[in-house]
Amino acid sequence: MANAARVVRSRSDSPSLARKGVREANLSPVLSLVEREKERVLSALRQLIAIPSISTKPENRKEVERCAEWLATHLSDIGMTNSRIVRTAGHPVVTGEWRDDQRKPELLVYGHYDVQPPEPLELWSTPPFEATIRDNRIYGRGTTDDKGQFFIHLKAIEAYLRGAGTLPVHVKVILEGEEEIGSPHLGKFLAENKEWLRSDVAVISDTPFFAPGVPSICYGLRGNVYMEVEVVGPHQDLHSGSHGGAVHNPIQVLAEIIAQLHDHDGRITIPGFYDDVRPLSTRERKSFRQLPWSDARYARELGVRKLYGERGFTTLERLWARPTLDCHGIWGGFTSPGSKTVIPSKAVAKISMRIVPDQRPEHIAKLFTTHAQKLCPQTARVSVKCLHTGEAALVPLQSPGVEAAAVAMTKSFGKKPVYQREGGSIPIITSLKRMLGIDTVLLGFGLPDENAHAPNEFLDLGNFFGGILAAIHFYDELSRRIERKGE
Amino acid sequence: MANAARVVRSRSDSPSLARKGVREANLSPVLSLVEREKERVLSALRQLIAIPSISTKPENRKEVERCAEWLATHLSDIGMTNSRIVRTAGHPVVTGEWRDDQRKPELLVYGHYDVQPPEPLELWSTPPFEATIRDNRIYGRGTTDDKGQFFIHLKAIEAYLRGAGTLPVHVKVILEGEEEIGSPHLGKFLAENKEWLRSDVAVISDTPFFAPGVPSICYGLRGNVYMEVEVVGPHQDLHSGSHGGAVHNPIQVLAEIIAQLHDHDGRITIPGFYDDVRPLSTRERKSFRQLPWSDARYARELGVRKLYGERGFTTLERLWARPTLDCHGIWGGFTSPGSKTVIPSKAVAKISMRIVPDQRPEHIAKLFTTHAQKLCPQTARVSVKCLHTGEAALVPLQSPGVEAAAVAMTKSFGKKPVYQREGGSIPIITSLKRMLGIDTVLLGFGLPDENAHAPNEFLDLGNFFGGILAAIHFYDELSRRIERKGE
Repeated sequence: MANAARVVRSRSDSPSLARKGVREANLSPVLSLVEREKERVLSALRQLIAIPSISTKPENRKEVERCAEWLATHLSDIGMTNSRIVRTAGHPVVTGEWRDDQRKPELLVYGHYDVQPPEPLELWSTPPFEATIRDNRIYGRGTTDDKGQFFIHLKAIEAYLRGAGTLPVHVKVILEGEEEIGSPHLGKFLAENKEWLRSDVAVISDTPFFAPGVPSICYGLRGNVYMEVEVVGPHQDLHSGSHGGAVHNPIQVLAEIIAQLHDHDGRITIPGFYDDVRPLSTRERKSFRQLPWSDARYARELGVRKLYGERGFTTLERLWARPTLDCHGIWGGFTSPGSKTVIPSKAVAKISMRIVPDQRPEHIAKLFTTHAQKLCPQTARVSVKCLHTGEAALVPLQSPGVEAAAVAMTKSFGKKPVYQREGGSIPIITSLKRMLGIDTVLLGFGLPDENAHAPNEFLDLGNFFGGILAAIHFYDELSRRIERKGE
Repeated sequence: MANAARVVRSRSDSPSLARKGVREANLSPVLSLVEREKERVLSALRQLIAIPSISTKPENRKEVERCAEWLATHLSDIGMTNSRIVRTAGHPVVTGEWRDDQRKPELLVYGHYDVQPPEPLELWSTPPFEATIRDNRIYGRGTTDDKGQFFIHLKAIEAYLRGAGTLPVHVKVILEGEEEIGSPHLGKFLAENKEWLRSDVAVISDTPFFAPGVPSICYGLRGNVYMEVEVVGPHQDLHSGSHGGAVHNPIQVLAEIIAQLHDHDGRITIPGFYDDVRPLSTRERKSFRQLPWSDARYARELGVRKLYGERGFTTLERLWARPTLDCHGIWGGFTSPGSKTVIPSKAVAKISMRIVPDQRPEHIAKLFTTHAQKLCPQTARVSVKCLHTGEAALVPLQSPGVEAAAVAMTKSFGKKPVYQREGGSIPIITSLKRMLGIDTVLLGFGLPDENAHAPNEFLDLGNFFGGILAAIHFYDELSRRIERKGE
């Protein structure tokens, strides 16, 4: 069906003025419903946030399941049909659908209902799984990443179905439960549901505005290659008095390996690492430089004295279009209060690399492993495993989806969006393109300082309700740009 | 009293043959009692091991107290007088005494009843606080460090008092509860009990044999300077996708600092660190080389492919007479199973330096702090604190205490002991010398692979019961070498 769609490039080409008129007239009850229902919408979002669907913690498995059930019920409640919990080898995918017998564009809405662990808990001002509103923001784990953001689409769909009794597009919703752990079973799900998934365009709301009050459309994401490195020294913990001076301390060895992963210019030292990196075009570098940005302000916001990174690139270039390497966790030896004098038997670090087009994740994982092994001295042993990978993605700017999104953002927020890339990863985008030929529009409503993955995650309520209006316009604008044939 | 003691240099000078004869005749009921009472002795030791007196854990405070109470009762039970629990600002010191109205040498027995934390628990074959006998060894936390070892003296004292109704020396026992955390309140205790503590010689059993079957007398120990280093980057955890490429990851900064603490020759890079190190004499280097030692066997025992350390020194020189630096613990970021993509706000490491004569602990702590601050880049902040310090110690070989110990070891174990140094620290030795002018004999009964500070700590039962006999001989030999005057 997607292949049969004819792309209508501009509004003047839209199918018929009559149809357009009907639609525009129909939008006002839909839009006004959002304004009237704010309290009810927030109360439902609170229920969703309250479920600690932390995909990476085995002990939260039941909570992830409970979240899937809550969502399947909710999809039915808002008027979608065929709402299902689709089993995978990991956490389930929740799906829902709405269609009528008219010719309409096919839209795929993707979101993920799993969340990051909330730790360190002591840094949250209010409990992570008790959504709390202050300063026109809703705080809680998953508010922006991604429960609060995909909820925008569920509320837009609900507003259409309750306000107008119909939708200008056919919608399929898929809500994944494993995005935060690298979507290990999503590929299989996509392959097994290929026919059902075919669509003209996909939309994902899981990215931030460029700045508060500056809506943006994100057209590029980095991929990710997540590794775990374990250094083993003596076969058991040793007394540092009796044995200090004879063995290479595994914490020291691990530190020496990590310290050698960057050179003095902040470049990653893994041989071959940069070989496939697609260079930034002069045009793109210029467009990045035109965005409102201040290194000094950004450093102040992060609380660092000085920024750090690969020499020869601006901060936005490093964040969006250059590959990076970060340590996410390290542990070894005695970590309680007090002073145990032990030479630990081992030390472990979690390290990931954000990759860009055209780096290949499996190849990068291999290069990393070889390099870490080479850096490990003869006095210790190292083992490296790859926890997950995801490809980078770039979406074409000249496409009906991106154009519809730009108009929708302008209508809802009163100003034209800027075009930006983002440093994070949403692996499904590459899969949708490669497996189903679908381009994805990244219509994000977060904010740059929203604390995704950190304590005190929040979603701005202006962006949230504005996002529902934008989604309503987006579906409408899509239907003006994509005409269905052959049905 | 100690100042009034005349040191008798050799056995031919001993006070009177008649007195000597009486004593030798009296030893056999004392010695044979040990053989008969083995089961009862082990059962009491089991009770002592069962108390988790972990001084570094605030939550174990009551257990430390319970251990002190158990010991005070036990000192009374074995016939000591004046057994007391002496309060300090931290964990208490337990003291006991035995004296009669005869002229006898004054002996001070020191031990520590606190133990290291047992973690990692999963590596223990049997529970750490449930003493278990297998292969003629007793396993459990504190069996060798130091509960099992000071218990040897309590059982020697008990054997004298029950078998002969008297002791050839006046004995004062002090059992500390804070040795594993650097004895923060012992100095005050010593200063406040100076008069009572005055003795001709002190004995500590808290060191190992040189090798199984090779008894040794330890005449040197290293000191210790224990630091904690915290690197702080952004004011809170960040998403590595959104911010990776802009900030210097605190784990990376900490790793870079640690990696720079040793150079390629395994030498510590802290400026001025080696300035006060007393060089090894040619004679001492020669005597180390004559000990039965194999680097290959040692590496095999530890389970490492290759030893590591300061170039230009043998392994024994590095372990006993050269200062070293080790990381004891490191932590930061996400350390649970799974893959959280966070740039942590901070990372922390516990690092200590074993020091040798004539390095001064406070000076070394200062040099370390300055160096760590210098190594921290402008992109992060570092804070360094000193958790505790202890001086190194060397005991003169030509002293009545060391000579009595050598004879006692020979009588009990059937071979002459070797003289060795040890890499660990027993801070009280320097304090006893400096504050009270008392030399300490290190009469240790552990084994080099006894897992002190590690899982599956044990004490060889041959060494334990042989140790009781050696202590019995030691007290007797002491009384032949030190004559009391002026009483």
